[in-house]
Amino acid sequence: MHVHVNAAESVDGKLSTREREQVAISGPADFDRMDALRAESDGVLVGVGTVLADDPSLTVKDDERRDRRERDGEPATPARIVADSRARTPPDAEILGDAAATYVLVSEDADEADVAALSAAGATVVTAGSGRVDLPAAFERLEDHGVERLLVEGGGELIFSLFDAGLVDRLTVYVGPVVIGGRDAPTLADGEGFTDPDAFPSLSLEDVERLDDGVVLTYDAGAEEQ
Amino acid sequence: MHVHVNAAESVDGKLSTREREQVAISGPADFDRMDALRAESDGVLVGVGTVLADDPSLTVKDDERRDRRERDGEPATPARIVADSRARTPPDAEILGDAAATYVLVSEDADEADVAALSAAGATVVTAGSGRVDLPAAFERLEDHGVERLLVEGGGELIFSLFDAGLVDRLTVYVGPVVIGGRDAPTLADGEGFTDPDAFPSLSLEDVERLDDGVVLTYDAGAEEQ
Repeated sequence: MHVHVNAAESVDGKLSTREREQVAISGPADFDRMDALRAESDGVLVGVGTVLADDPSLTVKDDERRDRRERDGEPATPARIVADSRARTPPDAEILGDAAATYVLVSEDADEADVAALSAAGATVVTAGSGRVDLPAAFERLEDHGVERLLVEGGGELIFSLFDAGLVDRLTVYVGPVVIGGRDAPTLADGEGFTDPDAFPSLSLEDVERLDDGVVLTYDAGAEEQ
Repeated sequence: MHVHVNAAESVDGKLSTREREQVAISGPADFDRMDALRAESDGVLVGVGTVLADDPSLTVKDDERRDRRERDGEPATPARIVADSRARTPPDAEILGDAAATYVLVSEDADEADVAALSAAGATVVTAGSGRVDLPAAFERLEDHGVERLLVEGGGELIFSLFDAGLVDRLTVYVGPVVIGGRDAPTLADGEGFTDPDAFPSLSLEDVERLDDGVVLTYDAGAEEQ
């Protein structure tokens, strides 16, 4: 599986304010770039925190891109996937709508009733790991469902977990011309954080492109060599 | 006064790990760029957290730059300045060495004995504000001492306070090709954080330059228009 993390952050690395309100960090050109990335993917993954905060649909918005996918025998929108160890995704979340297939990745410790409610709402529930979802194992199961090109759109807890597990192949970050601040505001990579410099995921800067009023940084994150 | 904030951060906006260990985010070219910025300044400001964590000397390292300053009738190294509301700078901190003048900006609530110890160690103590140091008032006092070009090197608490007070004219950030992660790791702008998008400091991206293995982003922060 090829895992591409894409996000928009402020100059100080924040994805939103400390109140976790969605903030317009990027502009229309970056939004279009994100839509194109979705259209090239088999699945779009977010963490449950993003579902709870923003209730995104994660669909491809551009009609031509949807049509092209359908002409290629693909669904108009890639599968939507939530990393959700404790099955907290609300059964009425947008991501569970019928716009595309939906997978919810849970751990063995998720409440059975919550898991049943997600299944009843149309999701395919993938169970892997105890306590927290075992991402490498869950990704193998997603591959069995045909997800080879995975786009990850956040949030910071999930992105850290993916780097920690050595699963990231490519990272693109739009850096918007804004400072959000806040020691409690979510950043591109939260979690426990790395402490040993030798263990930091090392990236290779491949491209720098000005877009809207900001800049897109593209990194090879080299998961396949790890 | 012209206030220029310069820092090196990871792709996820971190200045160091959650353990606040100093980390080599940038390389020799960025280090040289920082040294040149110091040499063009009348004063270099850091927050007391940076003094306690890293004990920096904040001196100009390059001999030619030091010589040039002296030929111009300036001290070889600009004044070192600490924003230190409660006078926590240790009297044996490097920044209090005799390499250059040192100012410590404290609030009226700093302990008198601590202030006296800093004075005895050679610092000029500037008192402004109650509870927290009043940065605009303290900066006016620094101007009386000839500090017209101020370089700020962090940390994130001080940088947020400066943006919050509308005092930043220019921001340069070296973004290193590394992910540090950590919801408790210090970022470029910490503090309380902004919550109202209309109140976000809005920056104008002026320049993008690849340097070492990373990229330097230069922003006009437009303090003078505020």
